[in-house]
Amino acid sequence: MRESQLFFKTQKDFPKDEVAINAQLLLRANFIEKLMAGVYSYLPLGYRVREKIIRIIEEEMNALGAAEILMPALHPRSVWDATKRWETMGKIMYQFKDHSGREVGLGPTHEEVMAVIGKTVIDSYADLPRAVYQIQTKYRDEPRAKSGVLRGREFTMKDLYSFHTDEASLAEFYEEAKKAYTKVFTRAGLKAYATEASGGDFTKEYSHEFMVETNAGEDEMMLCRLCGFAQNTEISKLKSGTQCPKCQSGVLDKVTSVEVGNIFKLGTKFSEPVGFTYKNQEGRSMPVVMGSYGIGIERLLGTIVEVHHDDKGIVWPEAVAPFKAHLLRIGEATPELQRLSEETYHALQKSGVEVLFDDRERASSGEKFFDADLIGIPWRIVVSEKTLVREKVELKRRNEQEVKVITLNACIKSLTL
Amino acid sequence: MRESQLFFKTQKDFPKDEVAINAQLLLRANFIEKLMAGVYSYLPLGYRVREKIIRIIEEEMNALGAAEILMPALHPRSVWDATKRWETMGKIMYQFKDHSGREVGLGPTHEEVMAVIGKTVIDSYADLPRAVYQIQTKYRDEPRAKSGVLRGREFTMKDLYSFHTDEASLAEFYEEAKKAYTKVFTRAGLKAYATEASGGDFTKEYSHEFMVETNAGEDEMMLCRLCGFAQNTEISKLKSGTQCPKCQSGVLDKVTSVEVGNIFKLGTKFSEPVGFTYKNQEGRSMPVVMGSYGIGIERLLGTIVEVHHDDKGIVWPEAVAPFKAHLLRIGEATPELQRLSEETYHALQKSGVEVLFDDRERASSGEKFFDADLIGIPWRIVVSEKTLVREKVELKRRNEQEVKVITLNACIKSLTL
Repeated sequence: MRESQLFFKTQKDFPKDEVAINAQLLLRANFIEKLMAGVYSYLPLGYRVREKIIRIIEEEMNALGAAEILMPALHPRSVWDATKRWETMGKIMYQFKDHSGREVGLGPTHEEVMAVIGKTVIDSYADLPRAVYQIQTKYRDEPRAKSGVLRGREFTMKDLYSFHTDEASLAEFYEEAKKAYTKVFTRAGLKAYATEASGGDFTKEYSHEFMVETNAGEDEMMLCRLCGFAQNTEISKLKSGTQCPKCQSGVLDKVTSVEVGNIFKLGTKFSEPVGFTYKNQEGRSMPVVMGSYGIGIERLLGTIVEVHHDDKGIVWPEAVAPFKAHLLRIGEATPELQRLSEETYHALQKSGVEVLFDDRERASSGEKFFDADLIGIPWRIVVSEKTLVREKVELKRRNEQEVKVITLNACIKSLTL
Repeated sequence: MRESQLFFKTQKDFPKDEVAINAQLLLRANFIEKLMAGVYSYLPLGYRVREKIIRIIEEEMNALGAAEILMPALHPRSVWDATKRWETMGKIMYQFKDHSGREVGLGPTHEEVMAVIGKTVIDSYADLPRAVYQIQTKYRDEPRAKSGVLRGREFTMKDLYSFHTDEASLAEFYEEAKKAYTKVFTRAGLKAYATEASGGDFTKEYSHEFMVETNAGEDEMMLCRLCGFAQNTEISKLKSGTQCPKCQSGVLDKVTSVEVGNIFKLGTKFSEPVGFTYKNQEGRSMPVVMGSYGIGIERLLGTIVEVHHDDKGIVWPEAVAPFKAHLLRIGEATPELQRLSEETYHALQKSGVEVLFDDRERASSGEKFFDADLIGIPWRIVVSEKTLVREKVELKRRNEQEVKVITLNACIKSLTL
């Protein structure tokens, strides 16, 4: 894509109330725009990163055997009254009346709606187990929306739901889901720990939160780096500096962290109130046993920025970068330099390399280098008078200092290995 | 995909208040579920159709040179006050207060937000023209929500916005967008007429509505079938049976129709109130000239059902069908029949044919045939004792009567031509 034609402009000024690094960098690099506190737009570069994250998640959910669906955000009160959560979720749920006076709300989560839908599809033990997921917009009127895209009032969530005849079947799927979650976060360039946490509203058992270490986090965990054992400090009775209760050799450490995903054994908490049952082999009605599994898309995106940046800008992991390569034409656009840069651009595209071409006429060399570091595309390719005389290009990784001066063919080879 | 593992069940009962054919068929075939009037969930089969439609639209929008973005649905009142539409859209806009007392609303459309974002990206004539689009959830508290998915209170819209220095540049893009729209509808299996219509709230010029003839439509147009000239009867002074004013040889006819898309020249209606300007070559500030272009995703999906169905069910056009082929294993699942059906299933998948495999143990032959017609996948493949003895399969198109008994290889050849 040609930068001269992209709907995009790096920003010098951005909202002063943004204290989070993720928001500051994403706003400056024009990946996002802020409409109000906790509510953001995704411009072309941000949209591309968001899509890459979504594709990774879809692949891992499909591999789990789950099918994609889409539930609405607008819910009638009645669905939430069944579990009494219209009241208990009232503090963060947007609730209002429509023009006919009916009470409706915007879904902060979908367990109730999912159970209601499940009733129409699941009749018998032969219909179980099943799993479905959606990638859908959620609304939560967060009292504190100061963590940039980590805590939005409007945000996208991947929520997966599983349906089972019994706890054993749920436990089996739960372990598979845990593995799939680890794959998602690893692919997105994050080291996430499956941390034991309170089941909260959902379950008396432990649930698991997937935690990533960052300075920006709103959570804390006790972590053993040796074996990966981790507990949320909210439930942990363990102390920093003591021996890990799991591997018995590592030492526990306390750091701030961001929760990028969570998985819950719901049991029959949501199926019973709405009468979501199946007939067992004896023909008896039994409540369906459920699990729910969430990943916040923009929260994951923001966490990647919190973990992968330096003082010049973002350093995207390759799998979620908006483009793989950033081609910069540096210096006056003489016919010869135009030729070399266009040739390089077309050759990269032809080789299947996703490339952003900074062909802007009016930007200075300094601006181009500055913007490239800020945007954070993994591979930077420079063509200039200096490289032109040698019929070569400069190749540099965003996270390394070394600049290689190599032929276009060698450059393409490096990028398509 | 194996039907025995799909989150899916054809329905005998469905909400009695659904009068529209699209809703009746989509509910019975379990493509959708109804949560409240005008608010639906998309289950796996419906989700797949929706995705196919979205991919077609994205391809045509990208070909126009537009980049994809995503704007939020939750808007502060201030953005809508600038154009006074907080008041004028009040009847269909969900407006309410958040927990801090701030007035917010759910976007029924995005011209205002788009103009506000445009301000941060467009500075100069060198930044124009540009075009961006989103595929995003809209909310409209429709007083009548009786047309199934044709008129949802929550629905997905593709909205494209273009930005120009002047009316001439807008006119040029408008014509390109018109062509792209025709391509989208043709690819989705619809004959849509670019119908002259009132600019409504947006413009004093004519706009264009893309109309598809159906019995279910809420609109009417005067149409010349000879040259394709069409006018919305709301603005038309022409009478049925008179000569076409364009080609002067066809005769005008009046039919009901569904509007599947619309395109508007907005001019400076939205840029001026929010101060969305660019600097021209003389350095003078000028308001940006805008266009907006919409397609309702679920409305398009519902229109396809209204146009493509018979008394047995839906007849999906191939490009938007949830699967290309529906493989039915008919009769008792003997080891030999299992072998043939599994072999057929794997061979189809290996050849890249998207196939739904009705491998259900407990469904009767009658149910399988009935469901296949209801679901409406374009190609039906049957394996049974009858075909087994000849080591062949039966191939039938959903919209034809003829059944071919052919080898598996010949079947795959027909499907991958």
